[in-house]
Amino acid sequence: MPDAALSSAGAVSAGGAFAGSLDSAGGGEPVIGRRGAVESGGGAEQVRRRSLLAAAGVLGLTGGAVTVATTTSSGPAKAAEGVTKKITMYAVALPGNQFGYGLTPETATIPGPVLEMYEGDTLEITLVNTTNQRLSIHPHGVDYSTDSDGAPFNNSFNAPGETRKYVWRSHEMTATSGRRFTPGSAGYWHYHDHAMGTDHGTAGLIKGLYGALIVRRRGDILPDKQFTVVFNDMQINNKVAPNTPMFEANLGQRVEWIAIGHGNFFHTFHVHAHRWADNRTGYLEGPSDPSPVVDNKDLNPGNSFGFQVVAGEAVGPGAWMYHCHVQSHSDTGMAGIFLVRNADGTMPPGAQEAIDRFNGHQHAAAAAAKAGAQSQANAGAAQSQATAGAAQSPTTAGTAQTHVHGGTGQ
Amino acid sequence: MPDAALSSAGAVSAGGAFAGSLDSAGGGEPVIGRRGAVESGGGAEQVRRRSLLAAAGVLGLTGGAVTVATTTSSGPAKAAEGVTKKITMYAVALPGNQFGYGLTPETATIPGPVLEMYEGDTLEITLVNTTNQRLSIHPHGVDYSTDSDGAPFNNSFNAPGETRKYVWRSHEMTATSGRRFTPGSAGYWHYHDHAMGTDHGTAGLIKGLYGALIVRRRGDILPDKQFTVVFNDMQINNKVAPNTPMFEANLGQRVEWIAIGHGNFFHTFHVHAHRWADNRTGYLEGPSDPSPVVDNKDLNPGNSFGFQVVAGEAVGPGAWMYHCHVQSHSDTGMAGIFLVRNADGTMPPGAQEAIDRFNGHQHAAAAAAKAGAQSQANAGAAQSQATAGAAQSPTTAGTAQTHVHGGTGQ
Amino acid sequence: MPDAALSSAGAVSAGGAFAGSLDSAGGGEPVIGRRGAVESGGGAEQVRRRSLLAAAGVLGLTGGAVTVATTTSSGPAKAAEGVTKKITMYAVALPGNQFGYGLTPETATIPGPVLEMYEGDTLEITLVNTTNQRLSIHPHGVDYSTDSDGAPFNNSFNAPGETRKYVWRSHEMTATSGRRFTPGSAGYWHYHDHAMGTDHGTAGLIKGLYGALIVRRRGDILPDKQFTVVFNDMQINNKVAPNTPMFEANLGQRVEWIAIGHGNFFHTFHVHAHRWADNRTGYLEGPSDPSPVVDNKDLNPGNSFGFQVVAGEAVGPGAWMYHCHVQSHSDTGMAGIFLVRNADGTMPPGAQEAIDRFNGHQHAAAAAAKAGAQSQANAGAAQSQATAGAAQSPTTAGTAQTHVHGGTGQ
Repeated sequence: MPDAALSSAGAVSAGGAFAGSLDSAGGGEPVIGRRGAVESGGGAEQVRRRSLLAAAGVLGLTGGAVTVATTTSSGPAKAAEGVTKKITMYAVALPGNQFGYGLTPETATIPGPVLEMYEGDTLEITLVNTTNQRLSIHPHGVDYSTDSDGAPFNNSFNAPGETRKYVWRSHEMTATSGRRFTPGSAGYWHYHDHAMGTDHGTAGLIKGLYGALIVRRRGDILPDKQFTVVFNDMQINNKVAPNTPMFEANLGQRVEWIAIGHGNFFHTFHVHAHRWADNRTGYLEGPSDPSPVVDNKDLNPGNSFGFQVVAGEAVGPGAWMYHCHVQSHSDTGMAGIFLVRNADGTMPPGAQEAIDRFNGHQHAAAAAAKAGAQSQANAGAAQSQATAGAAQSPTTAGTAQTHVHGGTGQ
Repeated sequence: MPDAALSSAGAVSAGGAFAGSLDSAGGGEPVIGRRGAVESGGGAEQVRRRSLLAAAGVLGLTGGAVTVATTTSSGPAKAAEGVTKKITMYAVALPGNQFGYGLTPETATIPGPVLEMYEGDTLEITLVNTTNQRLSIHPHGVDYSTDSDGAPFNNSFNAPGETRKYVWRSHEMTATSGRRFTPGSAGYWHYHDHAMGTDHGTAGLIKGLYGALIVRRRGDILPDKQFTVVFNDMQINNKVAPNTPMFEANLGQRVEWIAIGHGNFFHTFHVHAHRWADNRTGYLEGPSDPSPVVDNKDLNPGNSFGFQVVAGEAVGPGAWMYHCHVQSHSDTGMAGIFLVRNADGTMPPGAQEAIDRFNGHQHAAAAAAKAGAQSQANAGAAQSQATAGAAQSPTTAGTAQTHVHGGTGQ
Repeated sequence: MPDAALSSAGAVSAGGAFAGSLDSAGGGEPVIGRRGAVESGGGAEQVRRRSLLAAAGVLGLTGGAVTVATTTSSGPAKAAEGVTKKITMYAVALPGNQFGYGLTPETATIPGPVLEMYEGDTLEITLVNTTNQRLSIHPHGVDYSTDSDGAPFNNSFNAPGETRKYVWRSHEMTATSGRRFTPGSAGYWHYHDHAMGTDHGTAGLIKGLYGALIVRRRGDILPDKQFTVVFNDMQINNKVAPNTPMFEANLGQRVEWIAIGHGNFFHTFHVHAHRWADNRTGYLEGPSDPSPVVDNKDLNPGNSFGFQVVAGEAVGPGAWMYHCHVQSHSDTGMAGIFLVRNADGTMPPGAQEAIDRFNGHQHAAAAAAKAGAQSQANAGAAQSQATAGAAQSPTTAGTAQTHVHGGTGQ
């Protein structure tokens, strides 16, 4: 189990704040989970991640010693000197009547880049609106004044073509009466549009203006890889199977999942063969941490949670499913694959066959989605409508509309 | 950050149980959140709150020393001598085919008064049914015999015009094997009708027969102000925007939110710029409390939770939105304003303009609600129907029916 | 309060793993909650429970001393030598187009038997498919290789008539960096079909192929009785009131509830007059356990949770309701009775009358369900459709369709 961040060599990376950790390839396609590991010794990949921030202004480094000490003691976190990071984000129209956020106009993706900070840090975001729509960026969890609210009633939004600055601050926990503490900002949060279409950003959300925001407590274990999963109406990251993202890791890598809900439907997020503590981090904070351990969790609009798992731990490599556990939702395409490769990166026996089965046998759903829609956004809406009907009549679910990805059994 | 309740001068108020903390103004309108701070020295407001209980029978005072000691030690709470409080509640028909509970027939409101007790206390409620409907009062969280169940199959209800006594008891945690404890009664609970319309009180709930019930552990931090927010079908406290309550506090006041869900729909409760620990109290119970910190939480029928925030902490004063984060729900009016005034009670710059924007720009929703309904209760139902339709078809949401409260941007 | 499992005489039973704890009577009817108490001295009932496992292969006994020591210390659990238990399960067609799992073909029930293991144990399940359908068994929470996934895309399922082995492993928590621990397998989990009808097992789930799976941490308090409650679409254990299970216990018995969600709808599980800590076990792990105490909890598809209550504690014996708190769901039959008898097993005053009221006054719902359906499975679907309609139009709920079980009040 790699625990790079807290090894002695890793003190700097534990203390170093990074942001913009999402890679992207050509064609506007997000390539999530293809990023290499964050090496404790500071490999090429780690430099690349940091360089996003460095290029944007400030390299977020604080003393590694402070980081480790804060967490391994049971005392309250000491206030560390937070850094201010400045980044520019672009809201961009994408093909298919979709929209995305990106760190450059060319790399806008759905979901947008993972933004990260440590408790005490400030993130100054210059949002460039390259579209002809009113839009904004509204964060969950962090501290902001009304002029960074992202809500139109506070006059906090970008008019079409406008550039505007939003400032997100954060803080550590503070002692109150007795042994009680006011919570710090650490959490698996998210950001999203709050202005397109309606004053709640309903159109911007449907069309892809959302992303993950992580605020870490100093000393938190850093992952090797990160996956952002957004259950948005009846889609995952605005896709339906078999076009949902295939997340990949090697056996033993520490993988961080950030799960976000948006839209109008209720969902439950399930991963096969992996489980996590239902608390702030996903690992137990001590032997008497009373948190339940789960592998299925409600993921409703505006919700977000995150957790780390060690890929394939106790179960081995292979192709594992993640999906919404509402039956009519998984049957109509809210499912994808978490591919755990062998430790050396090679494919485990049977995995490719499983992926082929998953990809090759859901023509019904794909055909239905295409027939009913002119664009991907509309396809999502059509999918939603079809599924809402199915939800009311379970007996009709599981027939023509359904996503049948492995129908070899009978 | 005011922490009056546990200051040395505040020991009495920390130990003093109070109930009936909801003010009310003329016209049957609940005035929530307009109550002044509970001063540690026992100001006029505190006397007023207590007088509700005192008038009803017993002034709930226990030794302040016991209160503080119980909580600041890490040992189990010692059994304190609970008090028995006797109050009379009235179930009353309100205009618009609504119903409410009140501590007098003239002050019945939706939601009903906040009822509070300490673990170990008993609440004897004499419920006067002034209506021509079968109804009852059923609590969550506390201890009661079958004849105080409020469920008709247990013959526990008020016939039309009947007066009936319900007894709610409570208890502290008790040690079990090892370090384990059977939970005490402390929690953010609620009470509601369980007999009107159906044996589950469905009609009573739709029409307003519900309220908050708080059981405190001795030593819990007391708030300066309290807001009760009930997501009931597609309304908040049986209102839609812009008629939803505007909750007000001054910068730095400790505000307690009690959130309750009722009806037939799923919701997520979100407050802008404020966050809380997702545990029993909303503040961390120690530096290693593993609870996640959230600003968005599922609020489904029968659910309740509560938390305290310091108004404007780390973000400053202003008009902040609270709303359901299900997009079609917020768009059709499940939204309101949390107004954080300056510390001296004056309006912060821009806040009135924001409120005006919020109030002035949602004619579509208001008009639709009025056109489709003869009464407020019916309006609620119509709203629900319209929204249910919208929920199935996200593409139609955000158009004519929607709540557009700040459409100045484009 | 009986605490048999951890009394000195009970050390063996605390350490003894058992499985298959569901009794069954003739006619394919599950008889849940009729099982006698697990006596600390090892009475006849306890032997019967164990004999299920003993007959299946290995009697799961480990040293009682290890069990107790592991839990009462605050250190990490020490790895105990897990045992491997081999059982045979049968998937069987039941009357009314239903299906069930059983430990013999004659005793298949809905839900299937409660399967239990201790962290570190392995369960080898030989699943005999006696039906003409493709099906599988997929567990939540435990460790399994892809060939035991139960998912068709991994070629892990039983063809019609096929016998196939599934292996579920488990593990204790393991130390990570600092005071952090990777979670162990302990939890209130569940198992279900993942192959009938669709690749997510939608048809198998609708028709009854599900059950509870408990992984215990050594030293966990053992219950006297167990109740499995599955909210599956609009039914409880594939029944609607008044045919939902009546769970029975004597005053003072420690009762373990395992709650599971399946299907397409969102629900909230509520029990009258009993409450539990919303954590891993339902009891507090220490005086500073920050978990909220609840009596109403979301129970959505794929979710599961469990907790122990002492029957009638602080409230006394009687007939108490458990139900979904979504109003249209309880009104149309998602409700049942938790009967707390006197400590000597006799009926408390008024309880039989309450049961009669509950059973005798819901003809409308029963009639509607029967009229619209040819089989029980179809009845469930019809019920779902009717309720979905009601959910959209709350004003029509509570009339002809509703479950009126105590209409004596007006």
